Amino acid sequence: MRRRGDQTQLGGGSTGTDRGGRDFLYLRLARAIEARIASGALGPGERAPSVRALRRAHGVSVTTVLEAYRRLEDQGLLAARPRSGFYVRRPPAPALPEPRWKPAAGAPRAASGGALSIEIVRRAAAAADYPLGGVTLGPALLPERRLNDLFRRVLRERPDHGGRYNFPPGAEELRRQIARRSFAYGCALAPDDIVLTSGTAEALSLTLRALARAGDLIAVESPTHFGILQAVAAAGMRALEVSTHPRTGIDLELLERSLGRHPVEACVVMTTCHNPLGTVMPEARKRALVELLARRNVPLIEDAVYSDLVYDGHPPAAKAFDRDGRVILCASFSEVLAPGLRVGWLAAGRWRDEIERLQLLTTGGSPALQQLVVARFLATGGYDRYLRRLRAAIADRVQRTTAAIARHFPSGTRVARPAGGHLLWVELPGGARALPLYRRALARGVSLLPGPIFSAGGRFRRHVCLSCGEPWSERIDRGLCLLGELCGGADG
Amino acid sequence: MRRRGDQTQLGGGSTGTDRGGRDFLYLRLARAIEARIASGALGPGERAPSVRALRRAHGVSVTTVLEAYRRLEDQGLLAARPRSGFYVRRPPAPALPEPRWKPAAGAPRAASGGALSIEIVRRAAAAADYPLGGVTLGPALLPERRLNDLFRRVLRERPDHGGRYNFPPGAEELRRQIARRSFAYGCALAPDDIVLTSGTAEALSLTLRALARAGDLIAVESPTHFGILQAVAAAGMRALEVSTHPRTGIDLELLERSLGRHPVEACVVMTTCHNPLGTVMPEARKRALVELLARRNVPLIEDAVYSDLVYDGHPPAAKAFDRDGRVILCASFSEVLAPGLRVGWLAAGRWRDEIERLQLLTTGGSPALQQLVVARFLATGGYDRYLRRLRAAIADRVQRTTAAIARHFPSGTRVARPAGGHLLWVELPGGARALPLYRRALARGVSLLPGPIFSAGGRFRRHVCLSCGEPWSERIDRGLCLLGELCGGADG
Repeated sequence: MRRRGDQTQLGGGSTGTDRGGRDFLYLRLARAIEARIASGALGPGERAPSVRALRRAHGVSVTTVLEAYRRLEDQGLLAARPRSGFYVRRPPAPALPEPRWKPAAGAPRAASGGALSIEIVRRAAAAADYPLGGVTLGPALLPERRLNDLFRRVLRERPDHGGRYNFPPGAEELRRQIARRSFAYGCALAPDDIVLTSGTAEALSLTLRALARAGDLIAVESPTHFGILQAVAAAGMRALEVSTHPRTGIDLELLERSLGRHPVEACVVMTTCHNPLGTVMPEARKRALVELLARRNVPLIEDAVYSDLVYDGHPPAAKAFDRDGRVILCASFSEVLAPGLRVGWLAAGRWRDEIERLQLLTTGGSPALQQLVVARFLATGGYDRYLRRLRAAIADRVQRTTAAIARHFPSGTRVARPAGGHLLWVELPGGARALPLYRRALARGVSLLPGPIFSAGGRFRRHVCLSCGEPWSERIDRGLCLLGELCGGADG
Repeated sequence: MRRRGDQTQLGGGSTGTDRGGRDFLYLRLARAIEARIASGALGPGERAPSVRALRRAHGVSVTTVLEAYRRLEDQGLLAARPRSGFYVRRPPAPALPEPRWKPAAGAPRAASGGALSIEIVRRAAAAADYPLGGVTLGPALLPERRLNDLFRRVLRERPDHGGRYNFPPGAEELRRQIARRSFAYGCALAPDDIVLTSGTAEALSLTLRALARAGDLIAVESPTHFGILQAVAAAGMRALEVSTHPRTGIDLELLERSLGRHPVEACVVMTTCHNPLGTVMPEARKRALVELLARRNVPLIEDAVYSDLVYDGHPPAAKAFDRDGRVILCASFSEVLAPGLRVGWLAAGRWRDEIERLQLLTTGGSPALQQLVVARFLATGGYDRYLRRLRAAIADRVQRTTAAIARHFPSGTRVARPAGGHLLWVELPGGARALPLYRRALARGVSLLPGPIFSAGGRFRRHVCLSCGEPWSERIDRGLCLLGELCGGADG
């Protein structure tokens, strides 16, 4: 029984079902597979029945089978592997305790733009034997071939891509696509609200320079992405640390007290998919953050660089609660698609014109070519398909890494439970300290990100951040095993 | 008589000449053609005899004929037209007097990064009916097809161009090519001396931030490229104007007096192919400039963005006389090849590491793809062939434009005699003033660059800069005619 064009058949008269009927079919199919996974008939790591097999067994269309699989993928039960099929995801890792939470207000400090974090960023370009300190996703995950096809297409269709300046705010095609996508996270951005940048690095750097001057004080999270600390340092500004809770995000009480004590010019927060914690701030907290800062007349710089990596759902941005243009949303495709593309963006509210002017005078804008390629990738739906696979892949890697930490690390180790992203925040056991561990591990070929680089004041001496951006392998497992041994043997 | 592989024949025994003999042959041939031009037997605009005809008539090789033609091209007697042959260049335009020279020291001023110059830069992206105010070379001159072929080649050979960060200092392939070329202008740069940037805009911007702080004083030429004033403004610094002589460059006496009076942190000079004057500073003056600034312990930022556009010869850069790493050479391929590529560079002497760090923290570097494409264009010799054609083309346009100004503008008009570049600095006649002229001309569809945007203090109210970056045409001639009428009817 070969049935081609079966969507029409299901939607038409031959099966007697309407659109609602088809929906019912795929749900029924999904539940049947779910039941087999729950009963253990389909075990972790096993391949789910092929599309063809299910189609035959249940007499449904390919579309229906794929919709069922997508639902199971969204539920985190199945994971797609390219050109191979759908596999049952491993069960949640044995629960390790989460890192302890100790809120602490900081003192204003020069953000040094730390030599160590620069060394680490640079080293990320070279391969470690056991790469657990990658700043970005490893190349194996990235859609290199798809993007290069789009490069060739844009070269054909827009041979004049380089002939004129691509002045700020940058290629309209991409700004239109970003605006269209902004509804998904509660913002209704217009193409003209958006300025394209050279990754989030430039977005942050321009924003800080537009909002404040050298010597001014910027409130940052603790821990926070070291890229934020570097941007503050490069602008010659000082950082004021405010603790961030691994489940609920930046401590609002502490933030309010800090704002009362110090003249803060702006506040930088990673509200969705925090680096390194993987936190997604609950919606109500995002709203409260925006309201608190609006009351205090302090602009919010929302760094959303990893927000497309939330494992489940599409949480709103804090920018969604912005009433008067005082939230500047900074994001990037580079970090998720291909770091070397250098395609980021910002929606800068009331500072838009000033930021656009500053960009014109400092870099003249980025090349149009990469911007047009990303615009096509978004327009064709390729980016969304890629994200679906990517999220499942990194959730799977985070889970395997957590399980391996539970196996290999001494008791007393604590691991965060990220809601998105490829990073794992680890509190070391007993007397282990991050910086000596970093040096010793490096000598053995294991890279990692030591906790203190995530703090202006050198906090988190007992924490490290491990990256799950490389494919899971025996080698990664060995690296974690080695690291666990080094933790055990560490002197305080 | 068909002679293939004739280089070997000439170099070998069949003609009885050695390498010296062949040189003699091409010189003799060149002089014969020169004599015909001098006698008027070959008139301006006429096509010179074809390579084939000369080869037959003189019994020499194709190589010899081409060498003779190249020599005549370098002398400014012939101009190559693609796929057409060599043509006799028009004689020098009727001599208009040069703009008057009135050296004047300036007072420190906030460089406003002028709203007008931004408006003009942005307008350059839109087409005027009579484009005489283009900031860059028009697309007709640019090697779009060649570059796009190279893009496709790099995509094939380096499909991973985007998969990793392209951290500062940027792609080594391009830095190696730049280092190799640096010998031509008297520098012996190593690949590691060089940091690739997003055009000269970023090169200047990073350099200023590395050398000085907001509020500091930077010595600039008067007039000077408004991009320099914009970079100073974006860095929050102040500008101190020092007059530049149209033939000899920045006034060294005035500079020395200014340095004695004001605490200057750096000095920005366009030593070779000045914008807007077209000046190439004589070698001795470059050396004196470097020595003066070294004595005063003031770093020199040498903006060499147009230095590949010198009509004749390869003058050394001021950087060639740098003894202790206090000259920072900033340059770019964007402005000469394709503005939208955003490929510039700097050789920053003792500030190299600080600038590299600043770039890492503010933009994370530019995409590798464009850098690799430019590297290939240099490596294959394509860039040098392109430059040869380009210089002849713009010298021709500058000459035609000068002649048209002599025809159409009221007497009293004065025009600079650039030694390179596509810009013409014009002193307006009688009561004509640049800003009203700019507005009135724009209303009639004629774009131009008004003199005051080339000065931090709004000098040059009686000067305009006209761009010869678009192909010569009847339309350009009509635009110049219209402008001449508007000059005549101008009220003071």
